[in-house]
Amino acid sequence: MAHIDLGVDEHQHPGITGLLMYRPETGEPLMDLAQVLLRGPNSLTPGERELIAAYVSGLNECKFCYSSHSASAAAQLDGDTTLIDQVLDDLDSAPISAKLRALLRIARVVRDDGRKVTPDLVAAARAEGATDVEIHDTVLLAAAFSMYNRYVDGLGALAPDNPGMYADAARRIIEFGYAR
Amino acid sequence: MAHIDLGVDEHQHPGITGLLMYRPETGEPLMDLAQVLLRGPNSLTPGERELIAAYVSGLNECKFCYSSHSASAAAQLDGDTTLIDQVLDDLDSAPISAKLRALLRIARVVRDDGRKVTPDLVAAARAEGATDVEIHDTVLLAAAFSMYNRYVDGLGALAPDNPGMYADAARRIIEFGYAR
Repeated sequence: MAHIDLGVDEHQHPGITGLLMYRPETGEPLMDLAQVLLRGPNSLTPGERELIAAYVSGLNECKFCYSSHSASAAAQLDGDTTLIDQVLDDLDSAPISAKLRALLRIARVVRDDGRKVTPDLVAAARAEGATDVEIHDTVLLAAAFSMYNRYVDGLGALAPDNPGMYADAARRIIEFGYAR
Repeated sequence: MAHIDLGVDEHQHPGITGLLMYRPETGEPLMDLAQVLLRGPNSLTPGERELIAAYVSGLNECKFCYSSHSASAAAQLDGDTTLIDQVLDDLDSAPISAKLRALLRIARVVRDDGRKVTPDLVAAARAEGATDVEIHDTVLLAAAFSMYNRYVDGLGALAPDNPGMYADAARRIIEFGYAR
């Protein structure tokens, strides 16, 4: 259970959802940011963007965020989480586009330290067709999940084991978005 | 200069300010979040909250964010950045309240990994009078600056050397807030 009393049943409102209800003043911009980054108009598909979110959350071992965003990515890419597991296991050999692989390499270093993004990493993404907005959004996605992961785990929010719960939540997000 | 063409004169719009202009769709929730966390109604003073932001940014060695938020903290606390330097140098001996010290200890571990927040760290902050909202906001502040720092450095945004620039910006923020 969370380190603070969220005033909600965490089994009904696990992970970040209970935190958003506890402090709606911060919950609104947090969800507005997720909506723009993951569901807003973009040349990267929602599935590709959810994969970046899942990848960063997986590297950070944030169970709630990883389970949530890998479920969302899977629902919008190949239907199960095999691809996400492959990306986490070995980015170099995972069956994804060269552009997405180059963007995930940028996300991987941002997760660690923003200063590790090199001109070479950026040039490699551009060489595979990535636009400046895609590079910008990849950096911000990796940075934003460096926040969401720490927020959820730093407050000790509940992360259920049941995969069906995450799949259900992913379906709602695909239908309604990261609504307030 | 930044890794992508921001379409602005970075000397006029350094650090995160050029990034916010480049992508206003993400800039709006990013500034809404900063406004709530740093300037919204709170039992922690704006100076205390800016100190938490400066501390995390200093540990992350994000020059632009550290310079900006230490200037804001200084302007609202003791007038110069000596206190912020003391906190960064040795949190245990810095001349701050026991409550703020306990909250900064939480922020320090969140910066590293949210999972490192222990019930003991939370209990220690409560024992010094920290409320649940203060503990929540400290965790989210540390998480949010884990994002802002990576965003600014991950895109290689310009961080000027001139302390006067940061002091001027701090005065504008104290007067007008983190406005869109």
